[in-house]
Amino acid sequence: MTLVRTSLRTILNEPRPDALERWFGDVTDPRERGEELARLDQERAARLAYLIGPPATARLVEPVDRNTAADFLGQLPLPTLIETIGRIRTDRAAAILREMPSPLVVEVLARLGRERSAPLRTVLAHPPTSAGAHMTPVFIALPADTPAEEAIERVRESAADGAVAFTLYVTGDDGELLGVVPFRALVLAPADRPVGELMRTRVIEVTAEADREEAARLLNAHDLAAIPVVADGRIVGVITADGVADIVEEEATEDAERQGGSAPLDVPYLHASPWKLWKKRILWLLVLFAAEAYTGTVLRHFEEELESAIALAFFIPLLIGTGGNTGTQITTTLIRAMATGEVALRDMGRVIRKEMGTGMLIAVAMAGAAMVRAWTLGVGPQVTLVVVLAVGAIVLWSALVSSILPLVLRRLGIDPAVVSAPFIATLVDGTGLIIYFEVAKLVLW
Amino acid sequence: MTLVRTSLRTILNEPRPDALERWFGDVTDPRERGEELARLDQERAARLAYLIGPPATARLVEPVDRNTAADFLGQLPLPTLIETIGRIRTDRAAAILREMPSPLVVEVLARLGRERSAPLRTVLAHPPTSAGAHMTPVFIALPADTPAEEAIERVRESAADGAVAFTLYVTGDDGELLGVVPFRALVLAPADRPVGELMRTRVIEVTAEADREEAARLLNAHDLAAIPVVADGRIVGVITADGVADIVEEEATEDAERQGGSAPLDVPYLHASPWKLWKKRILWLLVLFAAEAYTGTVLRHFEEELESAIALAFFIPLLIGTGGNTGTQITTTLIRAMATGEVALRDMGRVIRKEMGTGMLIAVAMAGAAMVRAWTLGVGPQVTLVVVLAVGAIVLWSALVSSILPLVLRRLGIDPAVVSAPFIATLVDGTGLIIYFEVAKLVLW
Repeated sequence: MTLVRTSLRTILNEPRPDALERWFGDVTDPRERGEELARLDQERAARLAYLIGPPATARLVEPVDRNTAADFLGQLPLPTLIETIGRIRTDRAAAILREMPSPLVVEVLARLGRERSAPLRTVLAHPPTSAGAHMTPVFIALPADTPAEEAIERVRESAADGAVAFTLYVTGDDGELLGVVPFRALVLAPADRPVGELMRTRVIEVTAEADREEAARLLNAHDLAAIPVVADGRIVGVITADGVADIVEEEATEDAERQGGSAPLDVPYLHASPWKLWKKRILWLLVLFAAEAYTGTVLRHFEEELESAIALAFFIPLLIGTGGNTGTQITTTLIRAMATGEVALRDMGRVIRKEMGTGMLIAVAMAGAAMVRAWTLGVGPQVTLVVVLAVGAIVLWSALVSSILPLVLRRLGIDPAVVSAPFIATLVDGTGLIIYFEVAKLVLW
Repeated sequence: MTLVRTSLRTILNEPRPDALERWFGDVTDPRERGEELARLDQERAARLAYLIGPPATARLVEPVDRNTAADFLGQLPLPTLIETIGRIRTDRAAAILREMPSPLVVEVLARLGRERSAPLRTVLAHPPTSAGAHMTPVFIALPADTPAEEAIERVRESAADGAVAFTLYVTGDDGELLGVVPFRALVLAPADRPVGELMRTRVIEVTAEADREEAARLLNAHDLAAIPVVADGRIVGVITADGVADIVEEEATEDAERQGGSAPLDVPYLHASPWKLWKKRILWLLVLFAAEAYTGTVLRHFEEELESAIALAFFIPLLIGTGGNTGTQITTTLIRAMATGEVALRDMGRVIRKEMGTGMLIAVAMAGAAMVRAWTLGVGPQVTLVVVLAVGAIVLWSALVSSILPLVLRRLGIDPAVVSAPFIATLVDGTGLIIYFEVAKLVLW
């Protein structure tokens, strides 16, 4: 199905309307569109915006990744940029502006016209990970005595005006949120029924300062099309299912990066310089290095034992590696189960029993594997016995630590996602060596 | 805000209607409801279903996690179970039935009545990770000449009948999909306009056999409320945004488990027995053990060098640990960037240049840290030099391998998520030791 297509860049060398139109027809995936936009230089970007005009430019960049959109729009002449930003829906426009240099943002907001800049300023005033930063401040609010028919008419007008959520909010005299009427309920109701009789009064809402993850969790848990954002009891905006999909994706990326043992990047990977990547990674590397340095102390402590049975050294990476692997399997599964809310603090007992049971089974299997390996290395029966016993003990120890630690951290209010694979490997390395050499001392001397 | 609430279990000891009603009012989060349902025994489960009746039972379990819903419903008397299943929307009912024992499912389907069992059988016939398994086969399809007003009326009727997607599909005489009319477009159109003139003909669709991830990707990329599922060109069902949220969550969990170096669990963690967990984990542990066993061969090969400078052994865990950590940081970031589509195969050159640049900066920092550590262990200037050089070389080597490997696997059609933290650590351990001892041979002898 993939044909060789003319790239947007080539088309813009000598643009013909039909070629451009064909491109818009063929390339519909926002991700692909973004990739092609990213490859335009300033001249071609400006030419494209000029040819299709601000409304089409706004529709083009709106669903594209915000960094790409910001880079592309930043290349346009200022008047074109301002007119285009003015036509992008508020939550997306704010997300794009956050990626632009501040002087340009100040300029754009100053020249945008109050009606359009005021809602953008409202959204931009909230910290990037708050619910307020992801809302769109355009929503439909009506008094309780509005008849259903009139409300539908108002929704039609608002939709033409660019409101993104069709959900109707019923508000009191001071703008306080009284209830909510889903659009489907509105359409299915008799024409003269006042919206106050149709509304659900138990409204699921978030405050503007709440964490954006809370908004995402509530919207998904209750299968809502949009969730209202309130400040001082008044509705100030809504977050749509769409906005939540973006939040969920960004949070998942941050968790993945934490699990890999680095601080989350706040820009897309390809936009990050080596210097930026270094800054995000080096702290954890040094912390882990310092913790792992302890293994040197342990080994020096057992220097004599090591010298008298050098074969013990052969198994060091294998034993501590197996301990780390066992632990990593447990923590990743557990941290994910905690993130989806499946495992809670009070399940601690169940988790430990389950993991110790599994650890026992794994210890037996790995002891068998260790026996085979010791035999193939030809290290003699005594060292073999040490290795077999040590691997079993290390697997059990690692399982115990790995199943308790994430729950303890959660208990202390620390995000358990910091227990990354490198973290658990480091923790088990030093303690695993102590177990190994203590077993060796028992068996060999 | 958290009050001490009476649990559902306690309420059902001696149920009073007002207590039950208060519970439904207080506990609205499906996750919390699920947790309380999971704690009911057979007697209380049956009592609850009897008290609230099948329609309310269906509404209660529909949004709850499917394993919990299946366990709860499985405890009910067969006639109650059948009536309840018949009232749950098809995609959710199918998901719940998949978690029940087959003989029970056969019994339920046989006694459900053809009208209700036929769509369920259609969905259940598709493999669990296909798009078809997540569709609901109830949708609204009308001929192209239907006027908008009439279409709205039909949507109202369908909504009352339990259709979940309000999107209108326009079909030809043989059921072939001609176009799609979003509900908002329908509501905003003049009453007599035929839907054929309102429809978009470039329809985003998936085939029933397509991977469910493809459906999720398309729906999110195009911001759709629902995506039609086709078989032989005919529309057979729709997947809603809701269904997609479930797919995305399950796929993210599977990826997290793979990244932790185990096979994905196909049941929730708390439902998995130690035996089941063992089966999912042991294969990768043994594979990694076998690969890591190579470190023993390397160390035996350098036995003489090790015996003549036992201090070299002190740094083994530290050096290979640092190599593994560096690599894990890179692979997790890269695999996530590939999963979100941000990094593609053709970015290979950029990725490697970026990572080698970052690797250089990290190597310098870690070499400094290694110097400090060697000095504190008091191992003399020669071994210190070996350790400093080796840590730099291992960091660079690990960065190179970790940045190339995920892209190469993708090229070969293998899911790069298999490059877990334990995988990369194992790979770097053996090769890192070779680097270490080769550097030692150069410097010391």
